[in-house]
Amino acid sequence: LRLLTLARDLRRRKARERHRLFVAEGVRAVEELARSPLRIRGVLTAPQLADAPRGAALRADLEARGVELADVAEREFASAAETDSPQGVLAIAEAPERSLDTLDLGERSVLLILDAVQDPGNVGTILRTAAALGATATVTLPGTVDLWNAKVVRSAMGAHFHHPALSSTWDALDAFRVKHDIALWAADAAGAPIGDVAAEPPSRVALVLGNEGNGLSDEARARATAMVALPISREVESLNVAVAAGIFLYVLRR
Amino acid sequence: LRLLTLARDLRRRKARERHRLFVAEGVRAVEELARSPLRIRGVLTAPQLADAPRGAALRADLEARGVELADVAEREFASAAETDSPQGVLAIAEAPERSLDTLDLGERSVLLILDAVQDPGNVGTILRTAAALGATATVTLPGTVDLWNAKVVRSAMGAHFHHPALSSTWDALDAFRVKHDIALWAADAAGAPIGDVAAEPPSRVALVLGNEGNGLSDEARARATAMVALPISREVESLNVAVAAGIFLYVLRR
Repeated sequence: LRLLTLARDLRRRKARERHRLFVAEGVRAVEELARSPLRIRGVLTAPQLADAPRGAALRADLEARGVELADVAEREFASAAETDSPQGVLAIAEAPERSLDTLDLGERSVLLILDAVQDPGNVGTILRTAAALGATATVTLPGTVDLWNAKVVRSAMGAHFHHPALSSTWDALDAFRVKHDIALWAADAAGAPIGDVAAEPPSRVALVLGNEGNGLSDEARARATAMVALPISREVESLNVAVAAGIFLYVLRR
Repeated sequence: LRLLTLARDLRRRKARERHRLFVAEGVRAVEELARSPLRIRGVLTAPQLADAPRGAALRADLEARGVELADVAEREFASAAETDSPQGVLAIAEAPERSLDTLDLGERSVLLILDAVQDPGNVGTILRTAAALGATATVTLPGTVDLWNAKVVRSAMGAHFHHPALSSTWDALDAFRVKHDIALWAADAAGAPIGDVAAEPPSRVALVLGNEGNGLSDEARARATAMVALPISREVESLNVAVAAGIFLYVLRR
């Protein structure tokens, strides 16, 4: 019952931050977690896990590793789960302690900065994209949805179990950029076409993506060393932020 | 009440196909519809529309155009709406009659082919991306979610009110490709890097994107003249299909 109570509590961001724990739900997410360097504190299961594809194998694997398992009834499981049709498995894991100072910057680096990106599905898809296209790190700034929100974890499909994603502040990012000589580019419809600008990119660049509806914050505009844009039709207002992230990272890949 | 009954009925794909009508919900979608060439059959409103940003202006604009309006109670509106917190406006509009033969092919064309892409949010985002990046058309094949599904319409943000999106079949697409000399490229992790292949692209190309979980169908594999891939990290299984569409269309843009 302790794991059930904890899992319910971790639906709130404040609780996740206080405990430094998060929940990964579903067979696939728990499999990814088990393959990652993150530590699993415990796993909650419900009877329907036996019917899920790979469910029984996952359970056996977790038992063999000595992970604490708690079996609960389907109704109790549903009270902690955030999906509509839960597969009957969720893991409580330790959120990795990452800060800008723990990042491994190469000679050439691309950092993605999320400035008040609010939709969990977008942020999860961006993490998956950043990991796939080899971004050095993804940094979330205040106003952005919590990296360890259940929907973010689900959409990311395990990406930030290994990809260095962390939350920070403009102040910390300013100091970090000065120390490591990192240019700050910001995505804006009025910017220069990325294809032109990226022909000679700085060796280290941080790219800021703003809020889905309102775009860049004043803080981002004040700091940007260049504004960059994607060439889109006048008939369309904007691209989805995760699609835009994918194109920018593809163009900037090293 | 006629519009209310019709709107409820149009939640089913079969009813949309029989009536050749669809529903666009929310202030923004109805605004986009009113700006598009599509014909609005009628609009259902609920009292909360007066409180929505731009709600009163939209209502006045529709009245001035002589659009048939029906006011219903909040509870009745909710029975037809597909969103959780409806803004109190939905329009019933005529689905455009588009077929491959109505497409305006230029000397250089890029068509996007969706081969059993199932998530409505993904398909809507793909339509928004295809319109933004100037694809000639988006063609859905059997197994792909209905273009006029309410969630697709919402995610597309009005894109296919003007972007030529249509549903077709492999047989019709085969004949069309032969007639207009269109190469068929298919996206697959084992393909050649798109950056290399696209250095000398055919003047007309149709790019096939497969199902989110299972990838390309046998039909697509049998027909493809080239398989193309995006360079992704081995740690990540795949990109989201809408993000992949964005990168491919960016690379292939003319």
